[in-house]
Amino acid sequence: MTAIILIHCADQSGIVAKVTEFIHSNKGNILSLEQHVDRNAGQFFMRLKWDLDKFMIPKEKISEYFQTLIATPCGMTFDLYFSGQKPQMAVFVSRMSHCLYDILSRWESGDWLVDIPLIISNHTDMQPIAERFGIPYHCFPVTKDNKAEQEASQLALLKKNGIDLVVMARYMQVLSDDFLRHYPNQVINIHHSFLPAFAGAKPYHAACERGVKIIGATCHYATAELDAGPIIEQDVIRVSHKDSLETFIRKGKDLEKIVLSRGIFHHIQRKLLVYNNRTVVFG
Amino acid sequence: MTAIILIHCADQSGIVAKVTEFIHSNKGNILSLEQHVDRNAGQFFMRLKWDLDKFMIPKEKISEYFQTLIATPCGMTFDLYFSGQKPQMAVFVSRMSHCLYDILSRWESGDWLVDIPLIISNHTDMQPIAERFGIPYHCFPVTKDNKAEQEASQLALLKKNGIDLVVMARYMQVLSDDFLRHYPNQVINIHHSFLPAFAGAKPYHAACERGVKIIGATCHYATAELDAGPIIEQDVIRVSHKDSLETFIRKGKDLEKIVLSRGIFHHIQRKLLVYNNRTVVFG
Amino acid sequence: MTAIILIHCADQSGIVAKVTEFIHSNKGNILSLEQHVDRNAGQFFMRLKWDLDKFMIPKEKISEYFQTLIATPCGMTFDLYFSGQKPQMAVFVSRMSHCLYDILSRWESGDWLVDIPLIISNHTDMQPIAERFGIPYHCFPVTKDNKAEQEASQLALLKKNGIDLVVMARYMQVLSDDFLRHYPNQVINIHHSFLPAFAGAKPYHAACERGVKIIGATCHYATAELDAGPIIEQDVIRVSHKDSLETFIRKGKDLEKIVLSRGIFHHIQRKLLVYNNRTVVFG
Amino acid sequence: MTAIILIHCADQSGIVAKVTEFIHSNKGNILSLEQHVDRNAGQFFMRLKWDLDKFMIPKEKISEYFQTLIATPCGMTFDLYFSGQKPQMAVFVSRMSHCLYDILSRWESGDWLVDIPLIISNHTDMQPIAERFGIPYHCFPVTKDNKAEQEASQLALLKKNGIDLVVMARYMQVLSDDFLRHYPNQVINIHHSFLPAFAGAKPYHAACERGVKIIGATCHYATAELDAGPIIEQDVIRVSHKDSLETFIRKGKDLEKIVLSRGIFHHIQRKLLVYNNRTVVFG
Repeated sequence: MTAIILIHCADQSGIVAKVTEFIHSNKGNILSLEQHVDRNAGQFFMRLKWDLDKFMIPKEKISEYFQTLIATPCGMTFDLYFSGQKPQMAVFVSRMSHCLYDILSRWESGDWLVDIPLIISNHTDMQPIAERFGIPYHCFPVTKDNKAEQEASQLALLKKNGIDLVVMARYMQVLSDDFLRHYPNQVINIHHSFLPAFAGAKPYHAACERGVKIIGATCHYATAELDAGPIIEQDVIRVSHKDSLETFIRKGKDLEKIVLSRGIFHHIQRKLLVYNNRTVVFG
Repeated sequence: MTAIILIHCADQSGIVAKVTEFIHSNKGNILSLEQHVDRNAGQFFMRLKWDLDKFMIPKEKISEYFQTLIATPCGMTFDLYFSGQKPQMAVFVSRMSHCLYDILSRWESGDWLVDIPLIISNHTDMQPIAERFGIPYHCFPVTKDNKAEQEASQLALLKKNGIDLVVMARYMQVLSDDFLRHYPNQVINIHHSFLPAFAGAKPYHAACERGVKIIGATCHYATAELDAGPIIEQDVIRVSHKDSLETFIRKGKDLEKIVLSRGIFHHIQRKLLVYNNRTVVFG
Repeated sequence: MTAIILIHCADQSGIVAKVTEFIHSNKGNILSLEQHVDRNAGQFFMRLKWDLDKFMIPKEKISEYFQTLIATPCGMTFDLYFSGQKPQMAVFVSRMSHCLYDILSRWESGDWLVDIPLIISNHTDMQPIAERFGIPYHCFPVTKDNKAEQEASQLALLKKNGIDLVVMARYMQVLSDDFLRHYPNQVINIHHSFLPAFAGAKPYHAACERGVKIIGATCHYATAELDAGPIIEQDVIRVSHKDSLETFIRKGKDLEKIVLSRGIFHHIQRKLLVYNNRTVVFG
Repeated sequence: MTAIILIHCADQSGIVAKVTEFIHSNKGNILSLEQHVDRNAGQFFMRLKWDLDKFMIPKEKISEYFQTLIATPCGMTFDLYFSGQKPQMAVFVSRMSHCLYDILSRWESGDWLVDIPLIISNHTDMQPIAERFGIPYHCFPVTKDNKAEQEASQLALLKKNGIDLVVMARYMQVLSDDFLRHYPNQVINIHHSFLPAFAGAKPYHAACERGVKIIGATCHYATAELDAGPIIEQDVIRVSHKDSLETFIRKGKDLEKIVLSRGIFHHIQRKLLVYNNRTVVFG
């Protein structure tokens, strides 16, 4: 059994010493440690993973002890995870299968330690794929008029299933602020451009029209402002005058699925911290 | 002796056959041929290089013959270049040396078949470098009030030196529309972002603030609209939360010089055609 | 209906003119044309795609006419394909699913114009995946003793199904020269290294041991000499001292599937020519 | 004034706590900290940078105190550097200028905190460049017969100038084991291939012959075995069938200079540790 703690506080002298001493003196064996200081913002971030086998503080008491002995004195916020806890992930899709297959095949192969209790869509197209993998599929057709209502039903379903991570795998609807408020930094979206270039609708059309020589994809946490949330991961591929809208879309699909899956993997490994609309991605 | 022709016309049947037959029947040996059709726009582009050694049409008559026999009937525009003609390139700089050294070292080593008759700047900082390479350096300090006047002097100097290519090697001034009108598709700029993201001033600041995971540089022809001209070349490099504005700038400098030099090299090899604010870059 | 012709001959004057004139004078409309000359080897290559709608020569006579009028006089070899003919592809797998899912999801989505009549494996692990996609799965357990026999059975099955493309999607067996002789330049393999570095077994172990900073994957035609066939496509990803064998393998899987699928796509678009153990990949 | 310490020892419990406590309790302010554990090898590595302004231990005593209080008890080796100490770098060149200009322009611009007391070559070609930058140039023509003697003279010159870093900027000679023994992990070489592919002479010829789709460059510490030393940095660029040996060389030059300069920069920032013929490159 191992524990991971993600720490964030104002930068101050002696933090690393205090935290590592807390682990060490209680017979925890540190497996990895990464810290980051944002000098301009004066903020300190740390991710620490340690072995609980000989740790003197009982698992269920660690949070309380850490809060009392370290976090409160240092004005620190932290998140604590244990190796047994799998993230509960819901996948939202529309009509395209490339990201969905990429996610499901990683899950099925055991490469990702995550549960996928359900798939949600505004269309029925992906239902056969969900069935092949034995995952419940819920269809919520969305119109202008029923959107609030449908989101409420979706949220109820997510809560009922204990979902703590929502992945928009080319889900072609914008989730409302109300919805997102229930899942702060827990909704991951893939946008098919190199943000902030070509935010909004039809980015491949816009990129093709502009005559760029490289296209990209961006994985980010969804926030109230469309395509403006904290960026988790980006990647790019070369295009040329020989490419057309059709080949932009085809090449882009490969980027989308790989970049989205990398972003999800960072999240489920507990490697992400958000501060000031930016992410710290521990290595 | 070789010739290069760059061709552009509305797409139509039989063009390649007509042009290659023109070369072949006059005993020209085709060394390379590339064609591109933009199906959406219905436009045809071609670059053809051939050996003039046994070519039956005298060098100075080729343009006239091609115009009469091919270009006029097909409604074609074309540019014809001969292997002896070196582009005459002026370099505009401000205070940073990285792009300038990259350009001058390529020129000095003979990798680029180009003449650099002069360097122009709004500051004196780069004068010692110009002197080391034996290139005349002209300083035109630019203020709001004297800009039109200084540009007129610059243009006079460029014309006097037979300049047909202007390179803005991190020249920190915007050239006016009036200036650019004298050098259509002949002014190459390097912008230190992945355009269209972060156009305008201080792109590294903006990229850092936005929390992107990749930064870029863009080489383009300067046009009346700032940072919106036809893109010639782009490249990118990864950054992370560990990077600061300082390291964005440092990493970006390497991109800037390489991307600018690649763009210049395409131009001086006569591999670029502009259509509809986009470039065709023959391979 | 369109036709694609791939041409290869010794370089000689007037070839492009002859071929384009053949198409043009018979009222074929050229949709794309790419030619390549290898100056050192003195070899000429061309790919030409044209519209058959008004073409004067009947489809079933084109090969004969082209042979008589162009290919024989020019000492040319060529391959002719029509838009209706889908490649018949067999996929060979062992125990890993990532490449298989990548292939099947592209096929199912209609992105690839290809038929997959069967999947062959030396293990039963992937059978459930094949069944989900409704593709017959044939298991041929291979031992030292039965290899020749099993390959004979596999070949019989391939021939019976009219297979003209074999894809080794992380198939962990070496196909014999005998087998490969039946499918020259028709067996595509993915090797999990940046060839020629780390050919043979356990390339990730070797790369990790050597301390490289970038790992790669290579898609190539299988030939008698292991991992030495003509390279179709390669790509790479950064690694660091923080990576372990486990993360090399995980990162590498993404490369493997994307690079293999790109290579297959070039092949099924008839964009590949092989000469002198190298490939020409038309754009 | 700041200090940097690079630490290496067998992995053991409580090291980070001990080291950070040492800094913290003596009123040092940690500016950055990175640690790495190689689990397979059971080795621990750390780089720590701290502010000396209020540090209680006098600068000249830090090494002794750290040795006594931490390093000896933990079986640790370490290197300690202070912000005022600039590396003294000698550049070895032959006839090509691209790496040399790249190095000298970074040095001149102040981007690198390094001194370059001399340039050494086996040819006179680069002498004019050295003179432009005001750096003494020493020519040691090397033949089979005089190599040992010339290396002895070079070593004497290096020692006299207090050189602690030798950069082979496309120096076309192999330095002997004897020579290298004087500068362990202090001689940086650039090899113009993606090692371990194409080690030895004429890598571009070999890469072109093999038909690779990507070429690379590798910066590494020179060791007794040619092109087999610890890799510091690598990068790659795409090539295609359209490229020839000439364009491989041209594209490769850009890689060589950028990759070499990145490697040098890691070294002069004290970010490199070598273990087991591999490098740890702190971020």
